[in-house]
Amino acid sequence: MDRDSVRSVLESVSSGEMSVDEALLSLRMEPFQDLGFAKVDHHRGLRQGVPEVVYGAGKTPEQIVSIVRALEGRGGPVIVTRIEPSVAEVISDEIDLDYHGDCRIGVVGPIPEERVGRIAVVAAGTSDIPVAEEAALTAQLLGNEVVRVYDVGVAGMHRLLSSMEDVMTARVVVAVAGMEGALASVLGGMVDCPVIAVPTSVGYGASFGGLAALLAMLNSCASGVGVVNIDNGFGAGYLASTINHMRSPE
Amino acid sequence: MDRDSVRSVLESVSSGEMSVDEALLSLRMEPFQDLGFAKVDHHRGLRQGVPEVVYGAGKTPEQIVSIVRALEGRGGPVIVTRIEPSVAEVISDEIDLDYHGDCRIGVVGPIPEERVGRIAVVAAGTSDIPVAEEAALTAQLLGNEVVRVYDVGVAGMHRLLSSMEDVMTARVVVAVAGMEGALASVLGGMVDCPVIAVPTSVGYGASFGGLAALLAMLNSCASGVGVVNIDNGFGAGYLASTINHMRSPE
Amino acid sequence: MDRDSVRSVLESVSSGEMSVDEALLSLRMEPFQDLGFAKVDHHRGLRQGVPEVVYGAGKTPEQIVSIVRALEGRGGPVIVTRIEPSVAEVISDEIDLDYHGDCRIGVVGPIPEERVGRIAVVAAGTSDIPVAEEAALTAQLLGNEVVRVYDVGVAGMHRLLSSMEDVMTARVVVAVAGMEGALASVLGGMVDCPVIAVPTSVGYGASFGGLAALLAMLNSCASGVGVVNIDNGFGAGYLASTINHMRSPE
Amino acid sequence: MDRDSVRSVLESVSSGEMSVDEALLSLRMEPFQDLGFAKVDHHRGLRQGVPEVVYGAGKTPEQIVSIVRALEGRGGPVIVTRIEPSVAEVISDEIDLDYHGDCRIGVVGPIPEERVGRIAVVAAGTSDIPVAEEAALTAQLLGNEVVRVYDVGVAGMHRLLSSMEDVMTARVVVAVAGMEGALASVLGGMVDCPVIAVPTSVGYGASFGGLAALLAMLNSCASGVGVVNIDNGFGAGYLASTINHMRSPE
Amino acid sequence: MDRDSVRSVLESVSSGEMSVDEALLSLRMEPFQDLGFAKVDHHRGLRQGVPEVVYGAGKTPEQIVSIVRALEGRGGPVIVTRIEPSVAEVISDEIDLDYHGDCRIGVVGPIPEERVGRIAVVAAGTSDIPVAEEAALTAQLLGNEVVRVYDVGVAGMHRLLSSMEDVMTARVVVAVAGMEGALASVLGGMVDCPVIAVPTSVGYGASFGGLAALLAMLNSCASGVGVVNIDNGFGAGYLASTINHMRSPE
Amino acid sequence: MDRDSVRSVLESVSSGEMSVDEALLSLRMEPFQDLGFAKVDHHRGLRQGVPEVVYGAGKTPEQIVSIVRALEGRGGPVIVTRIEPSVAEVISDEIDLDYHGDCRIGVVGPIPEERVGRIAVVAAGTSDIPVAEEAALTAQLLGNEVVRVYDVGVAGMHRLLSSMEDVMTARVVVAVAGMEGALASVLGGMVDCPVIAVPTSVGYGASFGGLAALLAMLNSCASGVGVVNIDNGFGAGYLASTINHMRSPE
Amino acid sequence: MDRDSVRSVLESVSSGEMSVDEALLSLRMEPFQDLGFAKVDHHRGLRQGVPEVVYGAGKTPEQIVSIVRALEGRGGPVIVTRIEPSVAEVISDEIDLDYHGDCRIGVVGPIPEERVGRIAVVAAGTSDIPVAEEAALTAQLLGNEVVRVYDVGVAGMHRLLSSMEDVMTARVVVAVAGMEGALASVLGGMVDCPVIAVPTSVGYGASFGGLAALLAMLNSCASGVGVVNIDNGFGAGYLASTINHMRSPE
Amino acid sequence: MDRDSVRSVLESVSSGEMSVDEALLSLRMEPFQDLGFAKVDHHRGLRQGVPEVVYGAGKTPEQIVSIVRALEGRGGPVIVTRIEPSVAEVISDEIDLDYHGDCRIGVVGPIPEERVGRIAVVAAGTSDIPVAEEAALTAQLLGNEVVRVYDVGVAGMHRLLSSMEDVMTARVVVAVAGMEGALASVLGGMVDCPVIAVPTSVGYGASFGGLAALLAMLNSCASGVGVVNIDNGFGAGYLASTINHMRSPE
Repeated sequence: MDRDSVRSVLESVSSGEMSVDEALLSLRMEPFQDLGFAKVDHHRGLRQGVPEVVYGAGKTPEQIVSIVRALEGRGGPVIVTRIEPSVAEVISDEIDLDYHGDCRIGVVGPIPEERVGRIAVVAAGTSDIPVAEEAALTAQLLGNEVVRVYDVGVAGMHRLLSSMEDVMTARVVVAVAGMEGALASVLGGMVDCPVIAVPTSVGYGASFGGLAALLAMLNSCASGVGVVNIDNGFGAGYLASTINHMRSPE
Repeated sequence: MDRDSVRSVLESVSSGEMSVDEALLSLRMEPFQDLGFAKVDHHRGLRQGVPEVVYGAGKTPEQIVSIVRALEGRGGPVIVTRIEPSVAEVISDEIDLDYHGDCRIGVVGPIPEERVGRIAVVAAGTSDIPVAEEAALTAQLLGNEVVRVYDVGVAGMHRLLSSMEDVMTARVVVAVAGMEGALASVLGGMVDCPVIAVPTSVGYGASFGGLAALLAMLNSCASGVGVVNIDNGFGAGYLASTINHMRSPE
Repeated sequence: MDRDSVRSVLESVSSGEMSVDEALLSLRMEPFQDLGFAKVDHHRGLRQGVPEVVYGAGKTPEQIVSIVRALEGRGGPVIVTRIEPSVAEVISDEIDLDYHGDCRIGVVGPIPEERVGRIAVVAAGTSDIPVAEEAALTAQLLGNEVVRVYDVGVAGMHRLLSSMEDVMTARVVVAVAGMEGALASVLGGMVDCPVIAVPTSVGYGASFGGLAALLAMLNSCASGVGVVNIDNGFGAGYLASTINHMRSPE
Repeated sequence: MDRDSVRSVLESVSSGEMSVDEALLSLRMEPFQDLGFAKVDHHRGLRQGVPEVVYGAGKTPEQIVSIVRALEGRGGPVIVTRIEPSVAEVISDEIDLDYHGDCRIGVVGPIPEERVGRIAVVAAGTSDIPVAEEAALTAQLLGNEVVRVYDVGVAGMHRLLSSMEDVMTARVVVAVAGMEGALASVLGGMVDCPVIAVPTSVGYGASFGGLAALLAMLNSCASGVGVVNIDNGFGAGYLASTINHMRSPE
Repeated sequence: MDRDSVRSVLESVSSGEMSVDEALLSLRMEPFQDLGFAKVDHHRGLRQGVPEVVYGAGKTPEQIVSIVRALEGRGGPVIVTRIEPSVAEVISDEIDLDYHGDCRIGVVGPIPEERVGRIAVVAAGTSDIPVAEEAALTAQLLGNEVVRVYDVGVAGMHRLLSSMEDVMTARVVVAVAGMEGALASVLGGMVDCPVIAVPTSVGYGASFGGLAALLAMLNSCASGVGVVNIDNGFGAGYLASTINHMRSPE
Repeated sequence: MDRDSVRSVLESVSSGEMSVDEALLSLRMEPFQDLGFAKVDHHRGLRQGVPEVVYGAGKTPEQIVSIVRALEGRGGPVIVTRIEPSVAEVISDEIDLDYHGDCRIGVVGPIPEERVGRIAVVAAGTSDIPVAEEAALTAQLLGNEVVRVYDVGVAGMHRLLSSMEDVMTARVVVAVAGMEGALASVLGGMVDCPVIAVPTSVGYGASFGGLAALLAMLNSCASGVGVVNIDNGFGAGYLASTINHMRSPE
Repeated sequence: MDRDSVRSVLESVSSGEMSVDEALLSLRMEPFQDLGFAKVDHHRGLRQGVPEVVYGAGKTPEQIVSIVRALEGRGGPVIVTRIEPSVAEVISDEIDLDYHGDCRIGVVGPIPEERVGRIAVVAAGTSDIPVAEEAALTAQLLGNEVVRVYDVGVAGMHRLLSSMEDVMTARVVVAVAGMEGALASVLGGMVDCPVIAVPTSVGYGASFGGLAALLAMLNSCASGVGVVNIDNGFGAGYLASTINHMRSPE
Repeated sequence: MDRDSVRSVLESVSSGEMSVDEALLSLRMEPFQDLGFAKVDHHRGLRQGVPEVVYGAGKTPEQIVSIVRALEGRGGPVIVTRIEPSVAEVISDEIDLDYHGDCRIGVVGPIPEERVGRIAVVAAGTSDIPVAEEAALTAQLLGNEVVRVYDVGVAGMHRLLSSMEDVMTARVVVAVAGMEGALASVLGGMVDCPVIAVPTSVGYGASFGGLAALLAMLNSCASGVGVVNIDNGFGAGYLASTINHMRSPE
């Protein structure tokens, strides 16, 4: 409820159109949306049809089904991330779930076809692909054109260089890499658009579950790199989408 | 040198306007720009007047002076980050340096006045201000309108809430916080624009030099948050500027 | 045996009512209770009917059964924490166990119905609920009135704010959160009663098994926050109960 | 502004006593206190005369002076923690500062003499005393009776045992220890009141700046122990005070 | 081969009793025992009948069987540590193995009955018993009298104190504890014989697999404490045995 | 006060020689020594003349002087460890201090000349010598014969081997090493007496302040190795002395 | 494409032999090999018959089969590392795979028989053998003569010393050890050829998954030691092979 | 003393040419060189004129002077690493020291002019140059031709690519980088000679003193990379020299 709405309530009270009790109820019922910092509803108004997102990990099939059904009521599609195949199978008995096993994302309802800009999702190794796919599919579902550039680790720089046109023409680059995570720095040094770096837990020994890649990406000597949590493909796709949907500044 | 330029050189050779040796020299002189992945020069062509940036930490005054003089030749202003006051003093004897002691940034040459969009730089505590200022001044110098919202840590949520209008109308938010770094999550849950989180080394004991804030920000339960290195105000300002300068997708 | 009891023994010796050997035996049989620092027995005398607590993790069903039987002899109810469902099943064959699968607590014997004060157990995400339930049920079993406020993570601040009345009227708040653990700081900044923070191992990647939330809670910029071990719902419920049972200072 | 106050404003508007603009101003000026979650002001109303607290570390003498002067205006005393001696000296030129060098706390204005309950501050070694004093003095300034039990590390258990009467009759115990931090567990096993454990950075080598003591205290096998940050004597004193001021539950 | 033996070989060569080739073979066959630093054989000569020890973890049943058979040839008993029950079962088909499932030790051959001195193995919790038993059985098998004092964690100090006579009359104390590992410090402060501290991986959350107990024990404020690896019951039993077998200094 | 003393008090009461109040006072004045677990006094009775030890780090010269004077009253010599040279100078103005600058130990009063057994203190590098000297001097002051074997790191195995006679004839070996700490394992594999391993903070980079050496020593593949804290030469010397003073088991 | 090739293309354009479009295509088709930094192809030309290597971990049998078939087309043998036995079984149905279960390496196609120099692969314990075998077999497959020296940990130095001839005559030594990793330092101090150190994850407790051995090897006091990742037998074998194939400098 | 020498001594004894005592002395005087594993002397015989190396850190000027003088007696030059400028000044009063302040290396005596092969020392940033210089100068002093390629971090890939000819023609590459350490992986993917990676402590925040670069280098996805300790330029130069001096295998 913005300033004008509060004034409008007050004017209704002043004019007698609204009783004090009604006004009180009105002011208290949704006090926080009133303040304008309720994120979900706010951007609902701006971009109709944006999918709702459910984090599926650690939830039972029953919980997911009931949440999805609640969200379906709002009209838009629903994305559920991190669903294990066995969970997806149970859910599919109840709901018409479009399940993408490679990145464990399930989609309920039709996704808007309009896609804008272009996000390049670049992955260092084949083992990084599940995380990269989570980022890529997330971005697609959120209305972004996506180009995938996979298996271009820095140990074979020529592979990366031969895909540079795809990378250099993107509006946002998502760099997905485990092990030493050098891909983010190399990409950050090549492009001048924002780079979202996703360390993955791919590796062994001194990779310490993705810590090595995480630290490397945080210490990138290239400017313009933002980092998300280890294996957080969804977060990278979401942030890249937010950036890609930016409009020109006035 | 893009595809058209190479074609142009080849046509000159074909027509006899350019000798083979001249063409060879032309192709080899700047082989990497030719390939199109030389970042600096590439965006030079797009946005004239963008300042050059020099990382001043660990460089002697003499090194900084000579680098700045070399860059000045290119015509634009030069920003030097992380200059200690004593170093700045020595440099100032040689160069006309506009030194900002609160964030240790020095500027050489006139900064373009045009500023676009709006970036909100939000800092949790007064001790976080030097890092926040590094981000804010960097963003200003790179041509962004900046609003500062300082001393709004989550332990006094009402202070933050009373500044929400500044925060919610920004195109990009930079969240600067040490200690437990909760500010990034709270902001990430309130706004729907990109949030760049900067953990700071402010704190003691189990903050472990900023590790606590860093981990917290990476684990933010809010979507749309990208993290940079501890105390890396410059990186946050630079990334925020890159995002703020995004144009509408076609 | 307190000062008066020792004096009484000595007087009996002095008067000849008690032989030296009897007195020696008496003084040596329970030397530690005598000193008054035997916690269990001491507070047994103060608050009759308080349940005995057994930490079930790492114990065999047989061990648990025999310990419970020994404790039952003392008359009060017995709480067993951290019993896996399969273990609970075996135990139930032997003992009349009231098993709460959501937080793996088993109860033997009737729990006193009297409950005092009010403890608010606040949990950030649905995955944090098992730990929150361990805290909540523990507090209830120890004689506290408990209100549960679940799924109110800081990424959706409006959900938390809409439950503030429950939180602000509590005598003690237990804040349960994984990932970045920001809930503790936000709550600590809102209420002025003691806050017991419980980091959980919920999360992935850079949460490092709850380390991120733990460090965040320890570094809370809010005053009045005490932290317990990762996933230690029982400890939080116990400490909250102890605080909630405080009587007015004289 | 609580429910009744909002109703009162609305009634004034309804009755015409207050104009819409005045009401709007009134509702917007302090919107957050209105919601009732503004901590400081809330408990201001409950306990008049409670000192304001300023965290002095990282602030210049000038900043501290101006903050103190602003707070003095509210009428109560002001506590400033973590003031280095050299800073205290500068401040003393401007303000009448009662400086306690042993724990680096400065006090401005008269402290209320009334003290309730009893908090035992127990410290393991002589090197832990500065942190213990920060806790003890904080608790005293906040209106608590405090008993100090110092130099009673577990390596000489008899020293601790000979002070048990002081410890066992306290309403809250603050356990301050560096090195292996065993004191918290031992105390937690002896008393049945809340124990606030403060790890200190006292030690060397594998104490890793207090990490060893911190981990030990978090893993305490005793129930009823809450932990604060390393060296956070103030936080412990504040939390202990909050607990000690608890009134009997209804 | 010590100085005298080399002299003896040389004299045999000098006198013609031994050919140069025989001498060369003699000097080269066991060059390292000759130097006197071959540990095993050296103390073989001192204490006949000492069991050979095989570390069973990570070895196949076949490997263990063949190693045991090789060692049996030397005449003494053989101890195999860390044998999983399933492995023990397979081995038992081939060899007459006396398997102790509680600490996963298997023994082949008769153990000498003579036992000297007394080692107290003290364990904090029931979950620590497997490690404690590994220490206790190891010490017994190596010829030491052992007294077990289990379930005497510092959270219930009176249980420990009531067993002090057993502890204080031992020649060596082995302190086994997980969680916060305070037992080692408390024991180290009570006895004046050597204390061997064994951190265990018992615990959860911030125990980080035994790290908390390990650090606590290394930082013990008590003198006279030596620490072995996490869960290394065998190492503690072995070291305690070595110390217990010390003879009076001349 | 042992059993006989308590009986004696009781008999005095019984016979009327002692009043009840006197007995009560007697029983309460030193209740813990009575129980026999007061370490210091207990071994005072066993080994007259053993020096008192004061840990000097973090104490002011004044504090040290007053503690030393108090201990002098008991008749024996006093050892003060970790005194910085500047502190030692101040102390020397007040007390007759025999200061050993190489290991920062000061001694007050005559040290008994009798020394038993032999402890070999072995140090890997010249930078490890201060820690080694702390161990060696401590052991000497506590009445042990000490042999020093310095600068025998495993990178030059021949240097170590040429000192093996000294090492192999010792009753206890103290192994002092920084960097990779391999010395402890090598020594542990060579001798069959107890080895006390002292990691030092000598090194740089990935030595992480002694962590590398500490972990290596804890993981020693040799049996019979106990580890103390990083740089804890005193603790190693004390433990070695305790072991060296062992008498033959009965 | 080197300078001469570019000149040649330009001359063809100049002479009219090649059209501008053909030249453009030629210059853009393989721009990176032209620059000469495409590793694979470069050394292909130098050493025909070198096996291709595929990292098998995290790849499905189908992926491995298709990659191997693609590589087979190039004529040489193919090595696949880190294939689990169950995966190898599936692959073997499709391809003639020579599977080495002890180190999980599969080989397709005939390996060249020529082997040069000598690499000594030295392993500390029997549990380290799988990693050591990965190094040894890799080196053999890459054309190196290999000598294996296993089970020679530093705790039994005589075993190592009795194999010194094998070690000292090698051109490169690979040192494989878990636990405390001292083997690398000891070997580094004995030989004067390059030593490649491989920490393994063998151990428990404070070995922290190989971290202890890794840190020890990095801190080796011996010169001439290079370290690879934990358990990275392949990397060590590959690097050793590269060094062993060095030719004399001109 | 090899097999033949021992035989020769024995034959002398057998023939009466040597007395038993003389033989005993001969066999015991240098028992370890006899065994052939004394590194220094062994390669002394192979490569005359190789400098002796002294690690200067933590040594007093006096210690360094006396060690250098002892080594000078052996005829060759002496290198002293890690000498602080102030220490170098003191030493220079006593010895003719050629001090290189940029990498803190001092040289005594003439260095042989012959240099073989070529080692490329590649450094990412200007702050990495001191470590790179330590490696480069070490390699030069040990008789290697060295080419320096500095300031070629991966964030500006074109700078690195423009120096590829220098890098690709080297026999060994030393990669020196702090921050994210990606340089090692990029170089490792470009060249097919051995790469020695040196992480540096250059960076801030999440570089954790070089840990980020260290982990990145250990996890390099490129084969043929060996890693040394953080900032260990000397170790890298030494290892590179050892590799560069390899002769062709027979």
